[in-house]
Amino acid sequence: MNIAVAQSGGPTCAINASLAGIYSIASRNGDIKKVYGSKNGIEGIINNELVDMDTIIESNYDLELLKLTPSTALGSCRYKLPDFESGSEVYGKIVECFKRNDIRMFFYIGGNDSMDTVVKLSKYFSKNNIDIRVIGIPKTIDNDLMYTDHTPGFGSAAKYVAATVQEIVRDSSVYSAKSVTIVEIMGRDAGWLTASTCLLRANGETAPHLIYLPESPFSTEQFINDIKETFKKHKAVVAAVSEGVRLSDGGYAGEEFQSGANDAFGHKYLSGIGKYLEQLVSRELKCKVRSIEMNVMQRCASHIASKTDIEESELIGEAAVKAALNGESGKMMMFSRVSDKPYFVNIETVDAELVANHEKRFPEKWINDKGNDVLPEAVDYFLPLIQGELDTVMKNGMPVHFKIPEWL
Amino acid sequence: MNIAVAQSGGPTCAINASLAGIYSIASRNGDIKKVYGSKNGIEGIINNELVDMDTIIESNYDLELLKLTPSTALGSCRYKLPDFESGSEVYGKIVECFKRNDIRMFFYIGGNDSMDTVVKLSKYFSKNNIDIRVIGIPKTIDNDLMYTDHTPGFGSAAKYVAATVQEIVRDSSVYSAKSVTIVEIMGRDAGWLTASTCLLRANGETAPHLIYLPESPFSTEQFINDIKETFKKHKAVVAAVSEGVRLSDGGYAGEEFQSGANDAFGHKYLSGIGKYLEQLVSRELKCKVRSIEMNVMQRCASHIASKTDIEESELIGEAAVKAALNGESGKMMMFSRVSDKPYFVNIETVDAELVANHEKRFPEKWINDKGNDVLPEAVDYFLPLIQGELDTVMKNGMPVHFKIPEWL
Repeated sequence: MNIAVAQSGGPTCAINASLAGIYSIASRNGDIKKVYGSKNGIEGIINNELVDMDTIIESNYDLELLKLTPSTALGSCRYKLPDFESGSEVYGKIVECFKRNDIRMFFYIGGNDSMDTVVKLSKYFSKNNIDIRVIGIPKTIDNDLMYTDHTPGFGSAAKYVAATVQEIVRDSSVYSAKSVTIVEIMGRDAGWLTASTCLLRANGETAPHLIYLPESPFSTEQFINDIKETFKKHKAVVAAVSEGVRLSDGGYAGEEFQSGANDAFGHKYLSGIGKYLEQLVSRELKCKVRSIEMNVMQRCASHIASKTDIEESELIGEAAVKAALNGESGKMMMFSRVSDKPYFVNIETVDAELVANHEKRFPEKWINDKGNDVLPEAVDYFLPLIQGELDTVMKNGMPVHFKIPEWL
Repeated sequence: MNIAVAQSGGPTCAINASLAGIYSIASRNGDIKKVYGSKNGIEGIINNELVDMDTIIESNYDLELLKLTPSTALGSCRYKLPDFESGSEVYGKIVECFKRNDIRMFFYIGGNDSMDTVVKLSKYFSKNNIDIRVIGIPKTIDNDLMYTDHTPGFGSAAKYVAATVQEIVRDSSVYSAKSVTIVEIMGRDAGWLTASTCLLRANGETAPHLIYLPESPFSTEQFINDIKETFKKHKAVVAAVSEGVRLSDGGYAGEEFQSGANDAFGHKYLSGIGKYLEQLVSRELKCKVRSIEMNVMQRCASHIASKTDIEESELIGEAAVKAALNGESGKMMMFSRVSDKPYFVNIETVDAELVANHEKRFPEKWINDKGNDVLPEAVDYFLPLIQGELDTVMKNGMPVHFKIPEWL
């Protein structure tokens, strides 16, 4: 029999490590002949665009490079499977692709949208008595999947953000005048990555002095007051702000203040919360201010990936193959934390249905009363996830990436 | 006798390495008793705010950390010294500070504005028969100082930019739809850092597909046409754009298109060229588009500093002390490249007056005819500057920085 694997949703540093884990354990299993990679997530299954992974991973060196390469080696998609009734043609194509290629197990690496695909496919197969097992492997820098202690990809994102915010703190502190630096961090609905900037305190930093998450209502008035308060102790204030902070009426802060903004051509400006707050501070406090958007770097900076994250992501891929071989289907792999110190996690399975289309938000109990900082308990949770560095393969002074196949 | 050192202008990853070089060689010299650090550049001399460096560098470990810490351990300033006539009070204060603390040599680490200070001070001292020698040590990620082959700090910035743009290329290529990614890179008047993205080609990347520098006139029409052309070969186009690209009338591209932009409060939007071009592409080409501002990360990402850069920056600091001991004054230290391969540079001196207030732009001969790319010769120039990685000291999964003294 053969198996297939696909990658879906937004990139991270660790998705390819899970792919490597699946490929690696499957190649050593006598029952599995071929591992097919699907181009652009489930779309490759629907369109029968598969690649025999042996043809793109030619050596152990390739496999090592794959683990260290950010983003998705097989491409990605944002495709949502239709319901059984309306989508019979799509399901027909999927079954046809699997049967034609003798694929008995399908592994989908993705976030909560991708788990929706895992649920639908596994239900469809079970309803129609088709023995194809479907397992989801979590990934997202948002860390917002239910049940799992954390998600592959998050640790590397948090490590990059911590190292970078620490450097920004150094950069922002050089002049004698007062200044405000606003760092905008990804997380539309969950503040995990923004909250992880508290990690700096484990190394004795006082910054970031303020941390704002989507989980607490955001008020621009309080923001300005918080900065004024912080100025009493620090001349260079650094604030970490989630891109998804919400006004007290529940709307994204980003919506309100952009509604009236137009450029020279009459087109709407779509700058983010950071840029907006930068202008607010400049106007209200008349001091030096800068906003910094972490942008895609926070999800693809594999040159400073967390060793723990990459190793766990590979292991969870391996465990997914074992789970499928044991007869499981419709499940998502997950980490269950046994202890913080020494850090230890078990890899288990959970019904993908319990995860799909839900999200795990940053716990209220770890947010301070004012809603402008997180509590020390959060540091203990985050710390193990960013530990260790990988031996990046360098050539000409730059990291070497896995060579992405031409067909992508 | 004692000596003093100060740091000025925008931060880089390598300024502290030059400080470490000065301190290190001075501590081993029997004639030099104390090395004083001046707080916030020349301002610390004027205000007599000095620190005995022995009190903040307590061990070799501290010295190692200092070399690996971005930004300026002594703070910085943007202060321009007045002329002799109008500024006699200021010069009086400076002389008083130097005499009171028995300082006979002053080292100023900075860019071309700082070299102006070196020129003025050395002339003032010489005119008034005061034996205080003044030496400038170059630093800037802009690489725009005359005479020197390159500037300390540039190699590390280029290494970060190369590694990061490569990761962005991976990140931008995952979907099946066409997309444009615009990376905005620092360099108001000189395109060196933006041009250095051509380094990716040394590792087999085709990206960035387009490179725009302030040295070539920029037209939005050509920009859109260039992208259309590139789409014929690549579905995910990546363009590196200097923040300082200029319209054909000579104005910054950033000026024109922001003139009419106002937010909901009637205040001007000040987003950069990247955000502007993002909207232009979205409007003209109706495809997925993202702009990424490298922001201060490109000047402070010491976690991926160039070993060559940091080592050279330390050496040029040491050489500055030797030059002053040899009686030189009013000079800037510089690198003179002997060969690309094997890479070798000599450290020499040049009259600071020849460097101050001038800038070295990216050579026209290395720009292609269309003005949208750089030629392979540039790769040979850049490559040696980004070679090697440092053993970053890590604690809790994050780099350890030199502890900045409390008085800053």
